Order: sequence, then structure tokens, then C-alpha cells
Amino acid sequence: MYIELNRDGRKSLPTQISEALGSRISSGLLERGARLPSVRKLAVALKVSQVTVSKAYAELERQALIHCEHGLGCFVSDADQKKGHEEAYWPQQYDDYLPRAQLWRNFDYSEVKYPFHLAAIHAEMLPLKPIGAQMASLVLEQPELMATYGNFQGDHELRETMKAHLQERGIILPSANLMITSGSQQGIDLVARTFVGPGDTVYMEAPSYTGAIDVFAGRGAEMIFVPMDSEGMRVDILTKLCDQRPPKLIYTCPTFQNPSGVTMSTARRQRLLELARSYRCLIVEDDPFSDLYFHMPPPPPIKSMDVEGHVVYMKSFSKVLAPGCRIACVAAEGNILSRLIAAKSASDLGSPLLTQRAVLPFIAKKYNAYAENLRVALHNRMEKASKLLKQYAPSNVSWVLPAGGLSLWLELPATTDITELHALAKRKSISFLPGDVCYSGETKSRHIRLCYAQLSEADMEQGLILFFTLLSDYLKKG
Amino acid sequence: MYIELNRDGRKSLPTQISEALGSRISSGLLERGARLPSVRKLAVALKVSQVTVSKAYAELERQALIHCEHGLGCFVSDADQKKGHEEAYWPQQYDDYLPRAQLWRNFDYSEVKYPFHLAAIHAEMLPLKPIGAQMASLVLEQPELMATYGNFQGDHELRETMKAHLQERGIILPSANLMITSGSQQGIDLVARTFVGPGDTVYMEAPSYTGAIDVFAGRGAEMIFVPMDSEGMRVDILTKLCDQRPPKLIYTCPTFQNPSGVTMSTARRQRLLELARSYRCLIVEDDPFSDLYFHMPPPPPIKSMDVEGHVVYMKSFSKVLAPGCRIACVAAEGNILSRLIAAKSASDLGSPLLTQRAVLPFIAKKYNAYAENLRVALHNRMEKASKLLKQYAPSNVSWVLPAGGLSLWLELPATTDITELHALAKRKSISFLPGDVCYSGETKSRHIRLCYAQLSEADMEQGLILFFTLLSDYLKKG
Repeated sequence: MYIELNRDGRKSLPTQISEALGSRISSGLLERGARLPSVRKLAVALKVSQVTVSKAYAELERQALIHCEHGLGCFVSDADQKKGHEEAYWPQQYDDYLPRAQLWRNFDYSEVKYPFHLAAIHAEMLPLKPIGAQMASLVLEQPELMATYGNFQGDHELRETMKAHLQERGIILPSANLMITSGSQQGIDLVARTFVGPGDTVYMEAPSYTGAIDVFAGRGAEMIFVPMDSEGMRVDILTKLCDQRPPKLIYTCPTFQNPSGVTMSTARRQRLLELARSYRCLIVEDDPFSDLYFHMPPPPPIKSMDVEGHVVYMKSFSKVLAPGCRIACVAAEGNILSRLIAAKSASDLGSPLLTQRAVLPFIAKKYNAYAENLRVALHNRMEKASKLLKQYAPSNVSWVLPAGGLSLWLELPATTDITELHALAKRKSISFLPGDVCYSGETKSRHIRLCYAQLSEADMEQGLILFFTLLSDYLKKG
Repeated sequence: MYIELNRDGRKSLPTQISEALGSRISSGLLERGARLPSVRKLAVALKVSQVTVSKAYAELERQALIHCEHGLGCFVSDADQKKGHEEAYWPQQYDDYLPRAQLWRNFDYSEVKYPFHLAAIHAEMLPLKPIGAQMASLVLEQPELMATYGNFQGDHELRETMKAHLQERGIILPSANLMITSGSQQGIDLVARTFVGPGDTVYMEAPSYTGAIDVFAGRGAEMIFVPMDSEGMRVDILTKLCDQRPPKLIYTCPTFQNPSGVTMSTARRQRLLELARSYRCLIVEDDPFSDLYFHMPPPPPIKSMDVEGHVVYMKSFSKVLAPGCRIACVAAEGNILSRLIAAKSASDLGSPLLTQRAVLPFIAKKYNAYAENLRVALHNRMEKASKLLKQYAPSNVSWVLPAGGLSLWLELPATTDITELHALAKRKSISFLPGDVCYSGETKSRHIRLCYAQLSEADMEQGLILFFTLLSDYLKKG
């Protein structure tokens, strides 16, 4: 098992080891009943003393994440404690470099009827018909588009369309500075694999997007979570932190932040950019939601103020057009971009040309009018959801009404056992995103995220009433 | 600049540094005219002495890859030596973890008329119509397929189809052991990011697939290239090498190997698997070509003999069906597979459902008959190409007729300057794959790869005649 250890004394080695193992256990990478490496073996592998590993195991045992049996070894805890005593199958001992996979754990369960954990838009609100019609005519009239590898940077015509789209939003760049990726998840991954390595410092909002945390964890980065207030990331605190640990990269979702919904003010955006300039580092500006405002348009993107190429800007069209088309656009400068394109080549040989061409005319001609309607529809959804919240949720649950985006971020009473609540909800075929997965390490969050957009309106209402009732009962009982 | 150094004394530090920089220069990651870090700065970053860095720079200067000027610094060489003296733009100093990108460099130039470097199949031979018709009916009748994220492991129905497909080829596994990826490039990348890290030993054939080398290089692996003979990888030599450096992973393309065309014998396949068992390591079996045989079917896949989960098998449908659909299937066991699925989640949230469903009925019902015709068509292509070779190519060029696959692997006289030849060819709008990129580091190859399948037949003939004539003239002149 490969664990990235920082020996700068900020955090004890046993804590680092127990947190790393805890992450693997909570995301399911270490399966229930799996046998952990022996203390001696792990000590050798990590180049630490056996006492250090023993302390880490003791801490995990204290948290009931593992149980150790004299002469047999330590095992990941299981409701059915009988498992795991047989000789381990060799692949369990085959080392990996995957410290965490909360996205995997918390994204993809199709077995629940009310998947409120998933931030997505229901098919009835998406422009699937015009995109489908375009795709049908492409495959019938130009089937050779399916025979062509897209070039690594992405289709030239789509990049021209994206250029015009970004220009309307204040980002003025030639299409040569744009790259098409398979969703912004891939964009974040490409930045991480290209520019972030073991021990590099990545700053991000507390809380932040699970998928980004997974990716930076996978690179062995030291992630530092910066508190937010109503104006977004506390850049004053960030500035002080940077004094101690210069940033390699700052990841932010400044508009209707995922998961908190908070929007960063213009002043903060400017100060963040200045900070990046003074440290000569990159900002990854993840922007899936800026077109989804309910009242006023949000402040201009940080990228629109960037003259020296400090911002890698990611605009996702996945959620708002057709998640299955997996189209996002990355804007970056000079050899920052060329290195990202090189990384893209090794990761998948380029995104398919057909899907790029299928969304092109819609983005070029119909997107703005569509977005206007979508905003109204989502605003209605949000209002309905918050009305149900007021009506059914217990009074010791608090939230701030979002000004855009797809989700509500609820704060539960300090005593709530969110893991238990989650298990109860799932038994009623309801899921939500527990706030814990929006941090790395051991941070315990009192928050949960609920998306109000991915179900039909009737299902959303029904599901939310069910859930809020369950929540009320649960909190009363506790 | 981040360079992975091995301090085990097998290769001197200056050589490792000069090779690492040489790779970045030859793949274009370090641009012409770019200023290298100062000797002092690089020495600090890599924790080596300034003498070590000076030696590395001297070696690069000897190879004319860089030029150094007193008081100004060292610059990547450029035909126009005037560039690069202005103050470096900050991103050039922004460190990356991308040691090489030959795929990026050698794949994607659409500006040549005769792209023989690209191993692909021309649209006229591909089943684009039935796949296109299926896709059109899906988007019109089930547009909601575009609204759905595919699950990370891949569509259940497609995995069932793949299961039957693999079963006919001797690989008997439940669909739970299969995963769908965006081409096998992504499959290789997922294995590498999950299981390969700095200093891990990866064995592969000499020569090997450029895209795999890029990926393992990106993980900081120590790649060791094992010689081949007519029966494939020399497993006897590999066995001895493993005594000194136990393998973390063995990467092989055993059937119509890319780029050499060689097929591994059944006996070698068995011995390779035994070796992996004794070292408890993984074999990545990359299999894009086994259905493309010209005479006899090739030996059964290594995976078909694997009972303990040592083989991660990759079957690409990209090249043979529709490169733009990017469909490949990965077969692996237990928590080897589950960790790969977790890695897939972080890299792109899963492959699109629509393309998976679009190829499904073709693979289920028509693939075998199609493959039979495709074999005939490719065999004809290969025979035409080899006839032209005999007729037009100089007598000091040698090759072995491939028994399947898409490419010819030519050996040129030892004195040939392949870089110069490549530049000449490109001026006539012809490209080929230089053998050098099928190795890591400084290995000089006398080989080039030409694909006979990706152009129309007329263009192929015309292009090959042009190229062989140019080659003749060039070798005569030399």
C-alpha cells in the first residue's frame, strides 16, 4: 500500500497513516473484511517505525474502522465479523496509488428512487431533441465522422463556437487557447496529472467538490481547505497560509460553489488573481453553474481579468446540455495549454468528434435562449424545494437560499449522526451527499447536499417530503 | 521541472537528467527557444550537485539539442537561434510532471495527405452505416440516453454482450468482471495511475506501443524493454531480469504486436503467466488486433489461461468498429477491477452511455461476419503494400510479412538518418512512425512503421510509391 507521507511535522505520522487508511476504508477501496498489511510489513513499506504503524492501527481500531485479533492480524470492520479470516487473495496485497475514491462511492448508485446526491438536470429540462436530431443527421449524412479520431485539442469548429460563447461572458481568447475535454472532471484530472505531484500544495474552498479532491489526493497533493464566508473563499486567510506554504495551485468554483452554493465577490476574485500572480501559480476556475443564476448574473469569471495566463478556466456543458455528451471547454494560455493537450493524448487519444459536432449548432445558436428558460425552470424548482423545506424540515436545520445552481446545502444539528441518517434514508430509497466527502481526511461535516433538479418535479416533491419527514423523526428521536 | 531519478546506480544521474530533458525536447514539451532552468536552480530542485546538472547540460549540448551562452543561460536549440533570449514568460518555469508525450507529437497531424504513421482503418472498410443507423434511432427514440451518465463500470447490457464475445475467444468471465473504457488507451492509463508509481519496474517488449510508454513514463516508472524474436518477448531474458528487479507489471501486446507485428507463441504465453504468478504481479495484455489475422487464428489470449487474476486484458473495438466511438473492454478480477473502476470515476465520470448502446447490437450480431470480410480486405491491402515494397523499395530495406494487423515494420540500413528522412517525407505530405518513439530514453531505432489500412486504396498505392521512391533516392544519395 502506497501512502504519501509528509515529514514536515505539521501532522504526526500515525495520524497521516490512519487518515490515509480511513479514506480508503470509507470510500470502499479497502473492502470490508479485507486484511490490512502486518505492522512490520507496512512499517518497512512506508519507511517508518513499527510503533508508528501500531499507533495508526490503534487509532483506526478506536474508530471501529478495523478490528485486530492477536495472531491473526487486523481486518477492515464488517457487520458480519466472521469474514476475512481466510488467507488473503493475492490482489489484495497488490499495491496501488489510489488513496481515495469518494466520487466512485457517492455518485453511481442507480438502485435508489430519489438520488438527491447527484447534481444533475432532469431529461425533461434538457435540449435532448435538437441535439439528438443533429446527431442523427450527422451519423446518417456524415458517418465518416465516427471513423475519425478527434484531434487532441478538440474540433476546430467547436472551439470557434466556444470562443464566441466565452467572449459573450467576458473571456476574450483565440480558439487556439481552448481545448475540449470529456467533461470538466477530465479537465481537472488533466491539470492535476500535469502540474500537481507528491507534496505540492493545493488550496481549495472548505468544503469543495468531491471529484476534485479525489483527483488531487490521487496525485499525493497536500490539500489545504480555506474557510468561506458569504463572499466566497477567505482570501485574507489564504494569503496568510500561502506565506507558510506557497501554493502550487488554487482550485476554486467561484460561482454557486459546489457544494455550498456561495458566490465569490468581484473584489475577492481580483485579490485571488493577484495572489496567484505574486506566487506565479495557477488557479483552476471550475465554472459549471454561472449560466444558472436566478436573479442577477454573477460577477464576471476570474479568467476575464487574467492577462498573464494564471487561470485555467473550465466551462462544463455536460450538466446543462446532455451529460452523456461529456463536453467541456478548458481555456488556458501558452505552454500551460500545450502541456494539457499532451496529457490529454495519453489519457484517451482525444474526445470523440461526433459528440463535439452534435452539440455545436445548439451552443452556437440556441444556447442563450435555452439558458434563459432553464434559469426560470430551475428557479421554480428551487423555490418549490425550499417551500417543502420550510414546511416539513425540523426547525434546527438551517440553510441559505441559493442564488443559482442545482443544490441546497443544509446544516444539521451538531449531534446528528449523518452516516446513520444516510443508511436510514437509503432504506427508503433516498440518497443525499454527506458533507464529509467534500473534505479530505478526517473532517466531520454537519452538512448534506440535496439536488432539486435531477428528478421529475413530482418525484422531487414526493422524495423531499419523504426525506424531510424522515429527517424530522430522526432528529426528534435523537 | 520534475524529473524522477533512480539512485540505485544502474544509470548515472547526469545520463538520467539528460535523457529526461531529451525526451521533453524531442516530444516538444520543451519548446524550441525555451530557456532551461539554471544549473543552480535545477540542482536544488532535483537534490543533486551542480556538477551533475552541468554534465547533463554538456551532454545535451553535445547532441545539439540545446545551446548554452555564457551569462544568458541554456536554450532548446532552434533553427533560428535568435529566439529565446527575452525574459522567459512565467508558465515556462511552472513545473510539470509530464516527462514525455510522443503520442501527442506523432499522432495528430492532419496536414499530411498520406498519414502512414497512424494505425487505423479507412472509413470505407468500417461498419459506419449500421452503427450510425443504430445511433440515429437511439437519439430519436430514446433521447434520455444522452441525459444519463453511464455508470462508471459501463453499461450492463454492453458488458453482457462483451462477455459473450470474449467467451467465443476463450475468455470465460461474468460481466461483473468487465469494464468499458474510452479506448484501450484509457484502459492502459487507468492501470498505470492505479498500480504504477515512481520507480516501479514495468517490463515491456522492445519495441513497444508509444502510447503505453508515454503513460508509464508519466507515472515515473522504470521501464525495461525486453528483446523479442519470432516467438515474441524473450521470456527467458525477462526471467533473468526479474531476478534483479522484480516486476510491478508486465505490459505486452502478444498478437500482431504493435509496432513489430510479431505474435507470441502459446508456450511463451504460458511461461509469461507463470512468471507473473511467481512474482504476484499483473500482466497487461493489450489486444487490439487478434481478430485481424490473415491465415490462421492466433494462439488464445493469455487471459484465457489465467485462473488467479494476474491478467488485465484489454480488447479495443475502437480501431475495428469506429474510432470515434472510443469503445474498449477491460477484463480483470476482484479488487484489481474495482480499483480500476474507482480510478475511472475520477478520470471522466464514466464513458457515455449512448455510444455504448450504439455499438452494442453490431457487436452482438454482426461482428463476426464483418470481421471475416475485414480480414480479407486487410490481407489484400497488406499484399498490395508488400508488392509495392518489393517493386519500389531499395534492396537494403528489410521486413517480415505480417500475419495480421495493420502495419509494416521496416528495417532501414544502419546509416539512415531517420529524422532527416522524416522531414523530407513530410515535405511531400507523407508521414511514418519513427521507431525511436517505440522506446524510452535514448535508444536509436533503425525501424519505421507504415500502416497500409487507413487510406483509400488508391491513396495508399500512390502514397507508398511516392514514399518508396523517396526512400530509394535518399538511401542512394546517402
